[in-house]
Amino acid sequence: MSGDDSTRAAIMDATFRALANHGYADLTVQAIADEFEKSKSLIHYHYDSKADLMVAFLSNLLDEFIDEVEDGGPDDPRERLLRMAEIVVVGLGDDAATRDFHTALLGMRAQAPFEPALQEQLVENDRLIRGVVADIVREGIDEGEFRDVDPERYAALFRSTIEGAQSHDVILGDAAPTDEAFAGIEEYLIDDLLVAGDGEA
Amino acid sequence: MSGDDSTRAAIMDATFRALANHGYADLTVQAIADEFEKSKSLIHYHYDSKADLMVAFLSNLLDEFIDEVEDGGPDDPRERLLRMAEIVVVGLGDDAATRDFHTALLGMRAQAPFEPALQEQLVENDRLIRGVVADIVREGIDEGEFRDVDPERYAALFRSTIEGAQSHDVILGDAAPTDEAFAGIEEYLIDDLLVAGDGEA
Repeated sequence: MSGDDSTRAAIMDATFRALANHGYADLTVQAIADEFEKSKSLIHYHYDSKADLMVAFLSNLLDEFIDEVEDGGPDDPRERLLRMAEIVVVGLGDDAATRDFHTALLGMRAQAPFEPALQEQLVENDRLIRGVVADIVREGIDEGEFRDVDPERYAALFRSTIEGAQSHDVILGDAAPTDEAFAGIEEYLIDDLLVAGDGEA
Repeated sequence: MSGDDSTRAAIMDATFRALANHGYADLTVQAIADEFEKSKSLIHYHYDSKADLMVAFLSNLLDEFIDEVEDGGPDDPRERLLRMAEIVVVGLGDDAATRDFHTALLGMRAQAPFEPALQEQLVENDRLIRGVVADIVREGIDEGEFRDVDPERYAALFRSTIEGAQSHDVILGDAAPTDEAFAGIEEYLIDDLLVAGDGEA
């Protein structure tokens, strides 16, 4: 990793922590600098504005998410879809930190209609994530593991569901039916809909 | 309808228009008063604060939604679920007004973690809506129209999906895969998962 790359990676980590601690509306470059070990001017050197930084952050988040699903994760199509749902709905690691981060993400998403650069990156992330889901579905069908559904249509449905469950967890807090929603994703959306039945109705 | 009831109904209509026009963050009682034909003091007479008004608005929205699904709508369980998805995902009436209103709703929901009274009402709405979905599923199973799924689990899944598709439409704007997500809800989430197959695998 070059010096610039490692600086950018450190800025992305600082942005993650600052988002979780401050939320999106109150996020400032100073708040990110406070989470960053090096100087604030280095952040300004790499990113022109908060908007520029947020777009880079979303792009980086997408890369990490796809790596997590595609490279570090399991090979089996069913397991990969389940892993994707788990990362999005339940999160990895600490519960409180996950909810704080998801809260900030929802705040950011809710601003997208008013911030074109942000919306454009979110559209790109959505397109790529649905592409990954559709590819996994196609692979599962080719391998004879999945029923023959329309991969793009299933991907749009799957993505609405996992993001809806994540948002719900943020919006409703501890009263959110997140465990039940996740169980429904596994049992109905993945197993009943996709995994080819062995004599099941 | 009593005079007070009709005043409250007029305030709710004004709140709907003000939310669609201003969004949640910028909403003031004055903005609602500007949409209201009678005096602002009448709003203050009925509601103590913006928070109080928002809670009443969400409760009223829930009543209207349930009326729309349960009373005005079709009898058949499949048609009722589809109607519910249609109202939430696609909306009724004018496209632009629907998206403006959904944008305001998402802005409101994203604030729920920071506003306990709002979160409490959203939790109540969620509980009741999932209850309606579960009741429809139970009825479909009893009538032999639906497969024997767990009604509460299916309700949590269904609700995450329809709200996720609505939020997605707001967040991604015209690039949102809303038609595909809605088609997936009808074809996969309702028909393939629930409607008992006639000799299908």
